Amino acid sequence: MKSQGGVTKRSEDFGKWYLDCIRECKLADYGPARGTMVIRPYGYAIWEGIQRYMDEKFKQTGVENAYFPQLIPYSFITKEASHVEGFAPELALVTMGGGKELEEPLVVRPTSETIVNNMLSQWIQSYRDLPMLLNQWCNVHRWEMRTRPFIRTLEFLWQEGHTAHATAQEAEDKAMEMVRIYAQFAIEEAAMPVIPGRKSRVESFAGADVTYTIEAMMGDKKALQAGTSHNLGQNFAKAFDTKFLAADGTTQFVYQTSWGVSTRMVGGIIMSHGDDAGLQLPPRLAPIQVVIVPIWKKDDEKDAVMTSVDSIVGSLKAGNVRVHVDADQTKSPGWKFNQYEMKGVPIRIEVGPKDVAKGACVIARRDVPGKAGKEFDVSIETSALQTKVKEVLEDIQRSMLVKATEFRDANIVDVKNMDELKKVIENGQWARCGWEGSDAQEKAIKEETGATIRCFPFEQPAGPHVCVMSGKQAKEVCIFAKSY
Amino acid sequence: MKSQGGVTKRSEDFGKWYLDCIRECKLADYGPARGTMVIRPYGYAIWEGIQRYMDEKFKQTGVENAYFPQLIPYSFITKEASHVEGFAPELALVTMGGGKELEEPLVVRPTSETIVNNMLSQWIQSYRDLPMLLNQWCNVHRWEMRTRPFIRTLEFLWQEGHTAHATAQEAEDKAMEMVRIYAQFAIEEAAMPVIPGRKSRVESFAGADVTYTIEAMMGDKKALQAGTSHNLGQNFAKAFDTKFLAADGTTQFVYQTSWGVSTRMVGGIIMSHGDDAGLQLPPRLAPIQVVIVPIWKKDDEKDAVMTSVDSIVGSLKAGNVRVHVDADQTKSPGWKFNQYEMKGVPIRIEVGPKDVAKGACVIARRDVPGKAGKEFDVSIETSALQTKVKEVLEDIQRSMLVKATEFRDANIVDVKNMDELKKVIENGQWARCGWEGSDAQEKAIKEETGATIRCFPFEQPAGPHVCVMSGKQAKEVCIFAKSY
Repeated sequence: MKSQGGVTKRSEDFGKWYLDCIRECKLADYGPARGTMVIRPYGYAIWEGIQRYMDEKFKQTGVENAYFPQLIPYSFITKEASHVEGFAPELALVTMGGGKELEEPLVVRPTSETIVNNMLSQWIQSYRDLPMLLNQWCNVHRWEMRTRPFIRTLEFLWQEGHTAHATAQEAEDKAMEMVRIYAQFAIEEAAMPVIPGRKSRVESFAGADVTYTIEAMMGDKKALQAGTSHNLGQNFAKAFDTKFLAADGTTQFVYQTSWGVSTRMVGGIIMSHGDDAGLQLPPRLAPIQVVIVPIWKKDDEKDAVMTSVDSIVGSLKAGNVRVHVDADQTKSPGWKFNQYEMKGVPIRIEVGPKDVAKGACVIARRDVPGKAGKEFDVSIETSALQTKVKEVLEDIQRSMLVKATEFRDANIVDVKNMDELKKVIENGQWARCGWEGSDAQEKAIKEETGATIRCFPFEQPAGPHVCVMSGKQAKEVCIFAKSY
Repeated sequence: MKSQGGVTKRSEDFGKWYLDCIRECKLADYGPARGTMVIRPYGYAIWEGIQRYMDEKFKQTGVENAYFPQLIPYSFITKEASHVEGFAPELALVTMGGGKELEEPLVVRPTSETIVNNMLSQWIQSYRDLPMLLNQWCNVHRWEMRTRPFIRTLEFLWQEGHTAHATAQEAEDKAMEMVRIYAQFAIEEAAMPVIPGRKSRVESFAGADVTYTIEAMMGDKKALQAGTSHNLGQNFAKAFDTKFLAADGTTQFVYQTSWGVSTRMVGGIIMSHGDDAGLQLPPRLAPIQVVIVPIWKKDDEKDAVMTSVDSIVGSLKAGNVRVHVDADQTKSPGWKFNQYEMKGVPIRIEVGPKDVAKGACVIARRDVPGKAGKEFDVSIETSALQTKVKEVLEDIQRSMLVKATEFRDANIVDVKNMDELKKVIENGQWARCGWEGSDAQEKAIKEETGATIRCFPFEQPAGPHVCVMSGKQAKEVCIFAKSY
């Protein structure tokens, strides 16, 4: 997609703003095959930040990386009844290889529970082989009809963790541990105040006993499922005969989990933050944390300015700050200010001849527009500057989370009956209520309002809550919302 | 594949030894679809070591990561004439998606020059957009008939770099820079004394003007192409109309490179080193650099031994050494010694009650068998132990390279005519000779001897060399060898 030179105002058209940001900030582009996406360096660098954090956390919990083949015999997919029901409509099939038609079509993996179990059933013999804690970083394909960059594409990148355990409790603990890691990442790194909770049966993963999720509120108040963790029980183990010899001499099926976070998270970050001017990236994940714009008019000013810029770059790099200098002389400072605001760079440093004379620079915050976000006469002495920049980055990170949390809380409304629920959903907000309805009733609400149960939050609000269907006291509160 | 409990001696049957190592060391397993491979954690950790090094080097040269869709419209592949000729026989095709037959089959990428150019032709307008330096880490598929784990599989993991430049010289420099990085990695990190050089026209990449390669000698003296870098000239640019507005106002095609290293490198590391007992992993890439085997007989000895072990682990981890403790009481120390020797762990540390009494431990080197490789009474004082272990690791790294280099040099034989060449090839060695023959003559030699020109080494040996075909003085020396 060719550049148009700016973005539609977020306040005017959220959907168009999103696509404009993707294009103008060079986050991604459309691939030639329908529904596919090219992730460009600026977008991929955000994904790399997600990978770095997750990979380290996984390894700290004892998970090891591995890689399973992408092409799965079609017969595998059909072995777990609810799994095939969920995934069959979305499969891409390889039917030709090396110029010949294959005897059995191969499925381009939509997820890997089946092939993982095929291998685990060969690798696991005794309780000594458990727990087996694996993860892979890979691409997956789901033949979606309506696509949107990062949020829903035919192919996406993700990690999929797969674990096998000797007891049901261990599997449950692991599934919970992973969704907690996802929530921690979202809140602390992405400044996304997600709500972790349990999915309804209707919305659970095809093949899972229970699905846990983190649900995020986007800038248009729609919900985004930003990561899921499944307790698979023994469903796949029974379908693939994944058994182990227990310590007591009996043979038993393993208990399993799987859990994944994908490039959809990049879309979530974009749609959680930002404003009319473009992106706002949380400092911890921003590929560029600080952009430096040198300013000079006369050639004899250039040397002094660039010497000062070099010194600032050195100081910040030494402090592990991700810094970029834009010294392109064919573009004006004003154009650059707009450009990096649009790209969501948290801090801009301006250095002109007057700053050089004072041994100082100007720091401008992306999250506070105009003069209020500018600090003048900031010392460029190495340690003072490092401290200053890191403080401002942390403050921006904090402020973004506070702002997003306030927005979220202002748009979750407690409802007591169906009329209230419908009004809240029509208003684009999230409806929180007691729920003891049936699967059929849940589906009927989706049919009527377009909203689904996003989750039963782990943190249940205090006080009695009535079920919106029955009007009776409910054990649990859930959240209904429209979602991506 | 189920464990047999040990490996065939390398000196008896190299091919069987290789497959035994893969299985017994849990490096990989066969996937359910023909020719596919599962990379298990111990094998994947070696790949992660390769990735860490390469990714950092690439970024230092200004390359940024991106991701291009895996599914490529079939028509793209046919646009560059020699490219389609090279790849058409090996393609996997997706013909069905979401339950429907596709109008145009999609190719599962065998490499991405075509789809990259499709995008570059949209992204590149002017010389200001150049150079464009991209890389992606991904999986690729080639429908090979004869497969071998890591070395040749239907699907493999790799990185593929793609760059576009304004001048032919810049592209040439970049292609050379990348093959130099590959050579440096192989030599310094993998202890593989590869020979970097230029491929013959016959052996070049389908679509390249020139292909550069690093050629490694395996333990059975066969050659392995362990990484390639291509100067693509304007071939793909012309096929995809990838043009830019030059500084002088003219419109020109870009000059391009592509370069890749794959999981094949893991196979190369295995087959470059090792002995009858199993693997030998170069310390810089070994997933486990030090294994600690605690030894006790009586229960009252256990506490003291494990306290000492904990202290050693703490010291080594603080020194960034990758350490693993095997305290499994159901296995004997002797069994563990064999196990970790087979797995190629560079250093074993033994700690028994007598060592504890002396505040010491025993260090055993994987590369020096028996007592000669053991050092007793090594102090476990933190800084002394860190220094000692790091020195030994570096010494093992150095020794492995020396040994492999001596082996390589002892098996490269200068030949002056076809009779000599045939004898050297029959003897399983590499034949070095002058070469000014034609493509047809090169192919005829392959037909007759099974050997191909591996490369024209960058470092040409001194002295006059005659062409084995014509008997005349040749400008360049090449290496003929049988290869994987």
